[in-house]
Amino acid sequence: MATSSFTVGIVGATGAVGQELLRLLLERDFPCERLRLFASARSAGKVITQGGQTFTVEEARAGVFGDIDLAFFAAGGGVTRSLAPDAVAAGCVVIDKSSALRMEPDVPLVIPEINPEGLRQHKGIIANPNCSTAVMLMGLWPLHKAFGLKRAIVATYQSVSGTGAEAVRELEGQVQAHVAGSPIKAQVYPQQIAFNCLPHIDTFGPDGYTGEETKMAQESRKIMGLPELRVSATTVRVPVVRAHSIAVSAEFERPVDLAEARRAVSEFEGAELIDAPENNSYPTPLAFAEKVKCGVGRLRRDTAFDNGLSFWVSGDNLWRGAALNALMNAELMIREGWLKPKKG
Amino acid sequence: MATSSFTVGIVGATGAVGQELLRLLLERDFPCERLRLFASARSAGKVITQGGQTFTVEEARAGVFGDIDLAFFAAGGGVTRSLAPDAVAAGCVVIDKSSALRMEPDVPLVIPEINPEGLRQHKGIIANPNCSTAVMLMGLWPLHKAFGLKRAIVATYQSVSGTGAEAVRELEGQVQAHVAGSPIKAQVYPQQIAFNCLPHIDTFGPDGYTGEETKMAQESRKIMGLPELRVSATTVRVPVVRAHSIAVSAEFERPVDLAEARRAVSEFEGAELIDAPENNSYPTPLAFAEKVKCGVGRLRRDTAFDNGLSFWVSGDNLWRGAALNALMNAELMIREGWLKPKKG
Repeated sequence: MATSSFTVGIVGATGAVGQELLRLLLERDFPCERLRLFASARSAGKVITQGGQTFTVEEARAGVFGDIDLAFFAAGGGVTRSLAPDAVAAGCVVIDKSSALRMEPDVPLVIPEINPEGLRQHKGIIANPNCSTAVMLMGLWPLHKAFGLKRAIVATYQSVSGTGAEAVRELEGQVQAHVAGSPIKAQVYPQQIAFNCLPHIDTFGPDGYTGEETKMAQESRKIMGLPELRVSATTVRVPVVRAHSIAVSAEFERPVDLAEARRAVSEFEGAELIDAPENNSYPTPLAFAEKVKCGVGRLRRDTAFDNGLSFWVSGDNLWRGAALNALMNAELMIREGWLKPKKG
Repeated sequence: MATSSFTVGIVGATGAVGQELLRLLLERDFPCERLRLFASARSAGKVITQGGQTFTVEEARAGVFGDIDLAFFAAGGGVTRSLAPDAVAAGCVVIDKSSALRMEPDVPLVIPEINPEGLRQHKGIIANPNCSTAVMLMGLWPLHKAFGLKRAIVATYQSVSGTGAEAVRELEGQVQAHVAGSPIKAQVYPQQIAFNCLPHIDTFGPDGYTGEETKMAQESRKIMGLPELRVSATTVRVPVVRAHSIAVSAEFERPVDLAEARRAVSEFEGAELIDAPENNSYPTPLAFAEKVKCGVGRLRRDTAFDNGLSFWVSGDNLWRGAALNALMNAELMIREGWLKPKKG
């Protein structure tokens, strides 16, 4: 990467996404001169070891961003709202995983392979998309480029790690209780998630859609620059630990050619085409956990639309859907010279 | 029920659907004078106890149907093809759960709450629908009656009991191995099903659709009498033991009124409206396992269509999707006087 080196902060470093960010930052040789980890006061002082290095967690609060060039916010929307303005005022670039600011007109919402131009136009804060949206667009974007997207109807199969580490423990605990014949307790989710499906992710709005479903529609329009795009989503939690999958049926402006569709997907850098069903070859969440690319397969003409195409995509919600997308945004900014150390 | 009493056979009595049929026949006080259980030669002689009664399994073969009035076929398509003609020739009415004859023009494919007239028009064989189709139509049919169905895009969340008892054991075994930290073996499915989703049910056709997906389209058209209906399905196996769920987005001819939609669903005898998301109230497979009705909820205007409606339905694949539907077909025939004992 670039030779200049950065002071980097991770806010929310003890959470599921924060931990993945730390791991990926070290594994991908991000040009950090110094890396500082922040979390709530409760976690301050905690020692974290990753990649042979040891970090002491500091309390995330106003005033800590003075020497930081780049801050990854991997906490909830409340933390972003309260601390990101302070970081920006200190001249720090914020890359935020929360949903707090994604739809703000002056906050670019960026997937680096789709709309990198947002990384040049920021005003201090760059938002990262919702995890299901990011995974879905790894299939939908190359197909849109090929045929012109008009409408998408999608259903998700989302893993519990999207809720956080406590949900992973809940699924694990319920499965253990099941095997032991003990009573199954539900605390993180309103109902048992082991051996069940819950059509409920985020809170319900007055129109009957969940926040997650609304995000998938709104964020797709913003990222792809398609304000008229019609999207209808049903988002469902399934007893999978890691990686989300999405069944997509899409209608396009132009006639769809299947060979061209496969070529478009396989040439897109965010996707890996896994599409030989005759050999039982299709993406699964288990196969695409901890993978940089998302797996796209089951491409076929959609039988409900004239210019339609259906596909199935699986991708790591913590990576493509959060930590990796954030990091790739920063890497691209550095490569293009759009991000430089303050003191550089 | 009717006072006349029948000699009834269950072919495939040792399988998952056969066992549910036996249980439901006894629980629902079906007017059996005599009940004979048939299975492959391998299972002949096996003794089955259910509801305090004991049955000895006989070999299913040509020539056994002489005294039988009504035979439920709960085995595979091969058994139906080889033995159903013999049963019909012996004057026996066959109610078949296999897919072998469903699309034959002279075989009615019947859900009793939707197209009971097929039960009068049979030529000895009545087919039962595919499990996902049956569950889906418990929501789609009342909405079609209200608004005129044009197009449906659906994604399924199907339980392993749809594959059979061996798949239930496989999921259970994989979960036990996971908890024990032992290697996980996949034999029934091509890949691990525990903590995974497989977009693969039945075999793949040359158009890229699975047999299950094609059945959902074809059978919906036949049962609802809508030859022009456009359906696109993605069918997915999830780590759930029992009951299938389906996310449905549908386009209608007429404008959709949500209150009217809810009324139509709640008045339909096959459905139970579970639709108070603000109280975390929506159907789940766990809640609708071993339920006679299917749960329909999450009703909302579909954001991808002008006259669109989305919903979520969960229902027992072994009951509504197989054994119960078959039994309810027979019960209705008896109630209407369309089925009488041969010797009566």
